[in-house]
Amino acid sequence: MSILIRGGTVVNADREFQADVLCDDGKILAVGEQLEAPVGVEIIDAAGLYVMPGGIDPHTHMQLPFMGTVTQDDFFTGTAAGLAGGTTSIIDFVIPDPRQSLMEAFHLWRGWAEKSAADYSFHVAVTWWDDSVHADMGKLVQEHGVNSFKHFMAYKNAIMADDEILVKSFSRALELGAMPTVHAENGELVYLLQQRLLQEGKTGPDAHPLSRPPMVEGEAAQRAIAIANVLNTPLYVVHVSCAESLGAITRARASGQRVFGEVLAGHLTINDSVYQHPEFEQAAGHVMSPPFRSSSHQQALWQGLQGGNLHTTATDHCTFCAEQKAAGKDNFTKIPNGCGGIEERMMVLWDAGVNTGRLTPSEFVKVTSANCAQIFNIYPRKGVIAAGADADIVLWDAEGSKTLSVKTQFSKGDFNVFEGRTVKGIPTHTISGGQLVFKEGDLRAVAGRGKYVKRPPFSAMFGALSKMHNAI
Amino acid sequence: MSILIRGGTVVNADREFQADVLCDDGKILAVGEQLEAPVGVEIIDAAGLYVMPGGIDPHTHMQLPFMGTVTQDDFFTGTAAGLAGGTTSIIDFVIPDPRQSLMEAFHLWRGWAEKSAADYSFHVAVTWWDDSVHADMGKLVQEHGVNSFKHFMAYKNAIMADDEILVKSFSRALELGAMPTVHAENGELVYLLQQRLLQEGKTGPDAHPLSRPPMVEGEAAQRAIAIANVLNTPLYVVHVSCAESLGAITRARASGQRVFGEVLAGHLTINDSVYQHPEFEQAAGHVMSPPFRSSSHQQALWQGLQGGNLHTTATDHCTFCAEQKAAGKDNFTKIPNGCGGIEERMMVLWDAGVNTGRLTPSEFVKVTSANCAQIFNIYPRKGVIAAGADADIVLWDAEGSKTLSVKTQFSKGDFNVFEGRTVKGIPTHTISGGQLVFKEGDLRAVAGRGKYVKRPPFSAMFGALSKMHNAI
Amino acid sequence: MSILIRGGTVVNADREFQADVLCDDGKILAVGEQLEAPVGVEIIDAAGLYVMPGGIDPHTHMQLPFMGTVTQDDFFTGTAAGLAGGTTSIIDFVIPDPRQSLMEAFHLWRGWAEKSAADYSFHVAVTWWDDSVHADMGKLVQEHGVNSFKHFMAYKNAIMADDEILVKSFSRALELGAMPTVHAENGELVYLLQQRLLQEGKTGPDAHPLSRPPMVEGEAAQRAIAIANVLNTPLYVVHVSCAESLGAITRARASGQRVFGEVLAGHLTINDSVYQHPEFEQAAGHVMSPPFRSSSHQQALWQGLQGGNLHTTATDHCTFCAEQKAAGKDNFTKIPNGCGGIEERMMVLWDAGVNTGRLTPSEFVKVTSANCAQIFNIYPRKGVIAAGADADIVLWDAEGSKTLSVKTQFSKGDFNVFEGRTVKGIPTHTISGGQLVFKEGDLRAVAGRGKYVKRPPFSAMFGALSKMHNAI
Amino acid sequence: MSILIRGGTVVNADREFQADVLCDDGKILAVGEQLEAPVGVEIIDAAGLYVMPGGIDPHTHMQLPFMGTVTQDDFFTGTAAGLAGGTTSIIDFVIPDPRQSLMEAFHLWRGWAEKSAADYSFHVAVTWWDDSVHADMGKLVQEHGVNSFKHFMAYKNAIMADDEILVKSFSRALELGAMPTVHAENGELVYLLQQRLLQEGKTGPDAHPLSRPPMVEGEAAQRAIAIANVLNTPLYVVHVSCAESLGAITRARASGQRVFGEVLAGHLTINDSVYQHPEFEQAAGHVMSPPFRSSSHQQALWQGLQGGNLHTTATDHCTFCAEQKAAGKDNFTKIPNGCGGIEERMMVLWDAGVNTGRLTPSEFVKVTSANCAQIFNIYPRKGVIAAGADADIVLWDAEGSKTLSVKTQFSKGDFNVFEGRTVKGIPTHTISGGQLVFKEGDLRAVAGRGKYVKRPPFSAMFGALSKMHNAI
Repeated sequence: MSILIRGGTVVNADREFQADVLCDDGKILAVGEQLEAPVGVEIIDAAGLYVMPGGIDPHTHMQLPFMGTVTQDDFFTGTAAGLAGGTTSIIDFVIPDPRQSLMEAFHLWRGWAEKSAADYSFHVAVTWWDDSVHADMGKLVQEHGVNSFKHFMAYKNAIMADDEILVKSFSRALELGAMPTVHAENGELVYLLQQRLLQEGKTGPDAHPLSRPPMVEGEAAQRAIAIANVLNTPLYVVHVSCAESLGAITRARASGQRVFGEVLAGHLTINDSVYQHPEFEQAAGHVMSPPFRSSSHQQALWQGLQGGNLHTTATDHCTFCAEQKAAGKDNFTKIPNGCGGIEERMMVLWDAGVNTGRLTPSEFVKVTSANCAQIFNIYPRKGVIAAGADADIVLWDAEGSKTLSVKTQFSKGDFNVFEGRTVKGIPTHTISGGQLVFKEGDLRAVAGRGKYVKRPPFSAMFGALSKMHNAI
Repeated sequence: MSILIRGGTVVNADREFQADVLCDDGKILAVGEQLEAPVGVEIIDAAGLYVMPGGIDPHTHMQLPFMGTVTQDDFFTGTAAGLAGGTTSIIDFVIPDPRQSLMEAFHLWRGWAEKSAADYSFHVAVTWWDDSVHADMGKLVQEHGVNSFKHFMAYKNAIMADDEILVKSFSRALELGAMPTVHAENGELVYLLQQRLLQEGKTGPDAHPLSRPPMVEGEAAQRAIAIANVLNTPLYVVHVSCAESLGAITRARASGQRVFGEVLAGHLTINDSVYQHPEFEQAAGHVMSPPFRSSSHQQALWQGLQGGNLHTTATDHCTFCAEQKAAGKDNFTKIPNGCGGIEERMMVLWDAGVNTGRLTPSEFVKVTSANCAQIFNIYPRKGVIAAGADADIVLWDAEGSKTLSVKTQFSKGDFNVFEGRTVKGIPTHTISGGQLVFKEGDLRAVAGRGKYVKRPPFSAMFGALSKMHNAI
Repeated sequence: MSILIRGGTVVNADREFQADVLCDDGKILAVGEQLEAPVGVEIIDAAGLYVMPGGIDPHTHMQLPFMGTVTQDDFFTGTAAGLAGGTTSIIDFVIPDPRQSLMEAFHLWRGWAEKSAADYSFHVAVTWWDDSVHADMGKLVQEHGVNSFKHFMAYKNAIMADDEILVKSFSRALELGAMPTVHAENGELVYLLQQRLLQEGKTGPDAHPLSRPPMVEGEAAQRAIAIANVLNTPLYVVHVSCAESLGAITRARASGQRVFGEVLAGHLTINDSVYQHPEFEQAAGHVMSPPFRSSSHQQALWQGLQGGNLHTTATDHCTFCAEQKAAGKDNFTKIPNGCGGIEERMMVLWDAGVNTGRLTPSEFVKVTSANCAQIFNIYPRKGVIAAGADADIVLWDAEGSKTLSVKTQFSKGDFNVFEGRTVKGIPTHTISGGQLVFKEGDLRAVAGRGKYVKRPPFSAMFGALSKMHNAI
Repeated sequence: MSILIRGGTVVNADREFQADVLCDDGKILAVGEQLEAPVGVEIIDAAGLYVMPGGIDPHTHMQLPFMGTVTQDDFFTGTAAGLAGGTTSIIDFVIPDPRQSLMEAFHLWRGWAEKSAADYSFHVAVTWWDDSVHADMGKLVQEHGVNSFKHFMAYKNAIMADDEILVKSFSRALELGAMPTVHAENGELVYLLQQRLLQEGKTGPDAHPLSRPPMVEGEAAQRAIAIANVLNTPLYVVHVSCAESLGAITRARASGQRVFGEVLAGHLTINDSVYQHPEFEQAAGHVMSPPFRSSSHQQALWQGLQGGNLHTTATDHCTFCAEQKAAGKDNFTKIPNGCGGIEERMMVLWDAGVNTGRLTPSEFVKVTSANCAQIFNIYPRKGVIAAGADADIVLWDAEGSKTLSVKTQFSKGDFNVFEGRTVKGIPTHTISGGQLVFKEGDLRAVAGRGKYVKRPPFSAMFGALSKMHNAI
């Protein structure tokens, strides 16, 4: 199938320009003015539209197991919902149980993901440590295209990585040319606060944010950054939600350290008043970690994006339904953590980011795809409209508008944290791997069409770091 | 003349890749693997070489008038020296005398610059204010391709712009879509310190840095940033030399303000011990403002480049000879301020930046050309190796080395602040406007071949700012 | 008259302790447990009460001239209102017109102040410069007990001090051992914003805060601090109202610079929503400069007090009546700037500071008297309960409460910015110069009983600074 | 024995003044001008001398057990050396082995300390956790006058407290009104760096600082501060040695958090070049943790003292002899950590602090005794010259000078980190508990004369904190 996108405004991270875009065989063949239309090509009229790289969501949990069930969106419905929102790639997480082989978990997740409608890749979590973990990290990087490892600094008595694991895993990642990433919350503090709140009879979802105050996140971010600094590794901090952790990143970057920050569409736009909702379902529907924060944090996060101290935007898409959330009816610590968003991310960001003047369209592309592709070393295959790149493209109508709702969403969740929000700026067409998979509301996702994306180690950035390595 | 660069590693700001580069008629025609060689093309073998956008020096003073004489390098010799160092464009300064018409000064400088061997453009200084200045700013932007205005916050009783001028000029620049830039030093403090030092009998060049301590620069940077913040304009701070002004920029950027910083190759690599040299000529040869700083400031500046708080590298190339410097033999305040560097900038930066692991090659391109081109809105004409861009290219031998010296330089100055420094990483070929003008030591610069570069207003960045403008 | 205060808890800046306090002849004679009562002594039962040094308000404008009228409170009624609120000393301002002799203005104000009911002293403003100002500064310090000079960085075309004046006056203050103080707002920016707002038809009091955004204050504070840093003088910043200027002070102090900050009770407790009041009188009643700020700034100011980056609390007491405020009915820039507060300051601070746990009682004493006395070198005459100190004492009932209102205030103004606020923690007795002048609501102030307080130069702190002076 | 100190300049934290000081029965009886001399009193002529509170060293390790030996100074010789240097009190450390009862360890140390020549008290370390530790903390506070607990964040596999212990112990301290203190170094990082260095063959003392870079300390300080913030406890960080941990304290204090910092005389004045000494004994003699740092850190520490972000000065006095240090001849990790200094602390601080203008004499008193006494709640018994206080006094000759050396020291160690330093400003007389124990070089210390000082919980400061406690 070949497609010619005619007359749009191409937006890349470095500039906007008028050009046609010709796709064939899954790739972008040419970008230029007045391209000739090959025989049989499907022509899409993009006059008045922006033509942008398809979004990459670097933080999703499709089909996440939970007490014998799984989240509502599996790899097919989740990636399909992404396509409807202009997102054409995800990086999901392989999360081995403690003592479970990393390879075993990896293969399990790979199997689940085969039905994906869009391209996908995996961060692998390091939740425990022994020699086999050390060895499997090597195998994953060298043979399976994994170039990033995740560490949960929270979730004590479960998957929490303590300092010893962080230190060993970061060191190993450095020699492999892989990126350490962290979920930054101090698990000991969360645990103590949870126990204390429960003892005080605070069992409802409004206690959830009280058990994870911003400093709990700021501490962990700072600690991971310090470890990365001492070991001379880069670092990627997932879902930065507050001024405290952003501050730690900002200080580190100002001193030249290679630290990257991810922010969720939800943390940028939703505040913590949601936990005060009198209905459990409403409040619990917003339970995720880190929690939504007060408005001043949102302002800080936008400033972080503008100033280049935050780099990627994600969703942590993880759709538990009301029935699953009800597990924590009498104890907020049992509410499964997670919210959706893959379908809405780009619309919400455009509306709150570009329409307000906070971000230019090129900056929008940076934070929705290009930076992510560079950090995780799949650029320029992804993240840019250029000849040779994957034909993952979204056409964007800056004047179009839409009211977001669980009623109209493609995602399988029964809840929408953006419920009722009317956004201006919506995708009209999504092209994934050269296929037109979404057209003006018509979703044509096909299970299994997505491809696993191998991400090579030693991104350009590592070249610089390795030279500094002898400093210690 | 058409040129095919074969087998090199193209380095752009976003990535490195193997590709041939075909130039014709002053432009880059194609970038790709295994390009076919047109008939008659000159083929340059770039195997083992980096192929990078020619450098842009956003801060030079060629042929600067001084008490009836001019600096040693005129627009021909200065731009030619730049070509020998891989720099293919400059942005020089039109500096009207107080009460002199901006248009008159602009035409004067344009005339002087016609002999340039490389492309050139002009920032225009606002050194005084009345309605004609307001009007001329409009004419310069709308008819003459000027999109940036310079303000000297130092040089009391001469060209110093006080707060009233800053406020009026920044406001005017905003409506024109032009970038305000500042030389940030508090002129009142410099003046007082100069008088005090002279009274104390400190008349030698070692008093020069004492008259301009870092806080003097930090204050002015902070003030300009605050004014830009209140008026909602972007800001570009020239020759940031110390932690104090960098700190002001870093804080502003962290809060989302669009402030850009320039740093000189000299400030990154030379410390203030030079002013202690017992010979007047040596010490005076280093007199420029801001002065060279102690080593801790250099470390801070590198961190600023790494963390994205400084964006461009320049030289403030301004070559006074020993005889001119001698005007301040008995009074350091009379030593004409200025040092060279256009020829050495890229080599010094590569050696101290890339070889040390501080910067990747792509980051080197960012800070030597791409960022400058984007900030001053001549991207992608300049600053990138891509089809359609000007054929301004430097081929770089990362293994080649050279000892910098006044004896071997092309620049006409009689002094070299980098004297004796051996650098690894040198240009082998420079292509300017599609012409091979420098080849392995052989400089083939031709007077008048450089073109005046018009820079349009309202860069993409201004789009975002104008939306925010209603905030006040 | 001799007084024995029995059984209270003495609170000094360094500690609390149970002790009796014996006063005689205007001085504290003894502080100790179970003091013997001299014959004829008046005994005050202080059981359950705190016994604290009388408050010092370092920032008042009594009887301030304004277009042929004066503010409502003259030196008698204003200081009397202070006594009713536990404040026993003020430092008011002598503000010479430009070109007016400092000595002439000083004597004028001294005359006005003779009717004061409480002790008083004067900062003298430097609003212009020539040799006579230089000379008069010397005379004021050496002969008249002035050890601080004020500089208005705002009020362009009136009393604004530009950088040249700041630099000269700070230098002069240093050699005299006097403290430079600044009203930190960038007058050029205020002027431009005022003109712009008026042009846009924004003429009401709600435009007042828009004409003086926080960055306008932050800039000026930073500038004054930089000048003090370069000249090696201490600095005292009056009425710090926002995070931006506090940040500048905090950074300076963290680097060892001797900068002190004052904060107003109003800025700590009132937010900028007051300017949205639909009635002109209400909104205009709150017009002062800097204006009240949004709540996040208040939080920052409290943190500044807690962390020791702000040192004194004041009021800027300046009571224009509704008729005077009406001068700006059609043009907010003509509303005379000023609000009251001397009577309420200590109650408001106790209630919002001590009752909330932000401050201990000892810290309350620090920020209401002791720090001020030390900074302005009248310690231990003022600011401490100790033998030998002036008998300026307030007895405080931490359990007593009161609703503040214009209807019940002693101050002559017709407006109360704390209207309707119920505070817990009130003065029961005030002793001034050994006289019981306020007792449980009964104000016994006597015009002319207040004494002029000479403040010697070269506080202990200057000793340290002068040694560093040779650094430049 | 009663003593009258005549004609000196009393220096307290809040001011200097001329006064006589009369001591009797171990207490200060009176402070005043021209005091009458009781019969039989010993009169000391203090004309030209400063009369200051005796120093308190809040961080010593006398008689510290080490592999079957102990440090050279026992409680007698160590406290005696302190008296010779003007220090009249110490707070030493009880360090239980993991699983050892806190009470048992406490009584052991109490027994050793009975021979002290000066007053002493104990911080107790929490090196492990179970219910008995929880209970013993209560007993120590309520029955034994302990109001501070120490936590080592370093020394993995030995006495390191992990986050779980920190969280539990800080919480317990809060309810007891005791101060948590931390030795802030990330033990996991130190361990990894030690192993890596040894593997690389770096076994000498020059590897010691490489195994404990500043960020390792900064991380731990930040973490402890975050935990204290979340749990709403105060925090005291011992031996802050670098800009990174000072920065964490400074940021916390600027946001109103009650964090206190201690700095060692050695860290203020000695840089890390000492580890490059070719002789093992010299380099090893300086091995302590945190290590000495590069000069820029020293500047930061002085600024921290000046700006009020560091509060106390100490020594970590811990005198291992050459033979003991030799245990690490082939492996730097086995060199016992520790240096002396109790005898030199006040002289070194006066010379480098007061003589340079960094500190006033009153500030010197703050950081050598008064702040410590307030933080650890023994003020005004200690830390001030006032009637009722303990007669712990040092007379100081600001003009006297001395060359510090192991040859002339009273301390029993065989090494002096201040060797050869000539200081100006020395103690002439030390009075401890009302006894003249040091007079112009003549040390008259008596074993067992020192008293154990009980420190009550809930200092004034805790009153404020407990009110805030309900915030969570």
